[in-house]
Amino acid sequence: MKIAVDAMGGDHAPDEIVRGALLYRKEGGPSDLVLVGREDQIRKALGADVPPGITIRAAQDVVGMDEHPATALRRRADTSIGVATAMVKHGEADAVVSAGNTGATMAAALLVLGRIRGIDRPALCGMLPTAKGKPACLLDAGATMDADEHNILQFARMATRFMEKIHGVDRPSVGLINVGEEPEKGGRMQLAAHALLEGAEDLNFYGNIEGRDVTRGITDICVTDGFTGNVLAKGMEGVVDVFVEG
Amino acid sequence: MKIAVDAMGGDHAPDEIVRGALLYRKEGGPSDLVLVGREDQIRKALGADVPPGITIRAAQDVVGMDEHPATALRRRADTSIGVATAMVKHGEADAVVSAGNTGATMAAALLVLGRIRGIDRPALCGMLPTAKGKPACLLDAGATMDADEHNILQFARMATRFMEKIHGVDRPSVGLINVGEEPEKGGRMQLAAHALLEGAEDLNFYGNIEGRDVTRGITDICVTDGFTGNVLAKGMEGVVDVFVEG
Repeated sequence: MKIAVDAMGGDHAPDEIVRGALLYRKEGGPSDLVLVGREDQIRKALGADVPPGITIRAAQDVVGMDEHPATALRRRADTSIGVATAMVKHGEADAVVSAGNTGATMAAALLVLGRIRGIDRPALCGMLPTAKGKPACLLDAGATMDADEHNILQFARMATRFMEKIHGVDRPSVGLINVGEEPEKGGRMQLAAHALLEGAEDLNFYGNIEGRDVTRGITDICVTDGFTGNVLAKGMEGVVDVFVEG
Repeated sequence: MKIAVDAMGGDHAPDEIVRGALLYRKEGGPSDLVLVGREDQIRKALGADVPPGITIRAAQDVVGMDEHPATALRRRADTSIGVATAMVKHGEADAVVSAGNTGATMAAALLVLGRIRGIDRPALCGMLPTAKGKPACLLDAGATMDADEHNILQFARMATRFMEKIHGVDRPSVGLINVGEEPEKGGRMQLAAHALLEGAEDLNFYGNIEGRDVTRGITDICVTDGFTGNVLAKGMEGVVDVFVEG
């Protein structure tokens, strides 16, 4: 397997990204990595002794953290995330990884790779630690704001395949984030989503879960709209900050 | 000031409620308390030596934690929360306090006291600890699910008066819970609410805040719809559980 890595995306890129790539190879990571970005900077960060399984693909441009992602991608053909994503499109890589502008990564996937049939809107997945020791998949953590019940069903399907294929979970359980366990709880959207999820025979639907159930690890997947998921994830982060920083 | 206390509401009622009332008087609490509920049980919990400033109002019935609140209140005239709330209505008490069924407390307020002019929907307020040492008012923490932008504006007004009058905060700042600081962030409802809040001259509107800003204490008030507020509060509780219980 070959992974295209956006070497220019994220804090202290490309140095930290290159260090991560070298560490991956040193620790015996099984995939080949293609570092995509400014060749001179990447080469300097790599040093003289480049291990096997790491190559470079030149891309002169970068999407900044404060740029409008889709506009930047449409105007500039040679961005690191655009080139890395195009490698997947053209079969030159099997996957793309970026620690940069989230919107740009999503926009590149949408513009370059296109949508999977049956999936109307994007979703972000956050893997959260739980009291049970195994991580839970929170989806959507912030991509689609006004998600309707059909989007929620699609998110549950995407998360199910992800947990099966990537995390090796057999029939991952899906919880719908709500204000109570009973099926009649929630707003209009949650009521409709509950009915759709309950009727989906390809899903292992657990039922409604509450905010506190995410870290309890009640279900493998916690599905919600992007607004709620984003506020929830950041609210939990805020509590961790208080405990860690005091 | 006289406070009607629902002596039958909450875990281990009326014993724990009565213990709290006795403690309040012992510590010099300035208000008179009326314990509302089953007289024999309350009298037994109070013991022989009832301090001044504590009286009993008989109410034979109780709304259980798993009952439908409005139905229970409509069918049974003699519930502790119903009688306690009616005391406020009739000027026999200045306020009512209950640790029981939240929905019953809200339904009693709505059915017995009615709505304030200009306020269409109820909201629950949660006072949350923050890193700045002063608590923040999270509103709505779970009463109104499908709140629109007009509800949000009304919630901000209720929270502002509450923080001024009860917590003595001068011009409390109002943050709109959203997925980013920029005014154009969020879903349809948040965009509309941001515009309304910005135009409300009686409010000290800070702008958008993110989930993590609640515990950071960025604003005195964190306003949102009841669905988001409930999921956020319980999600934060879940993280605390993990830290405290491991």
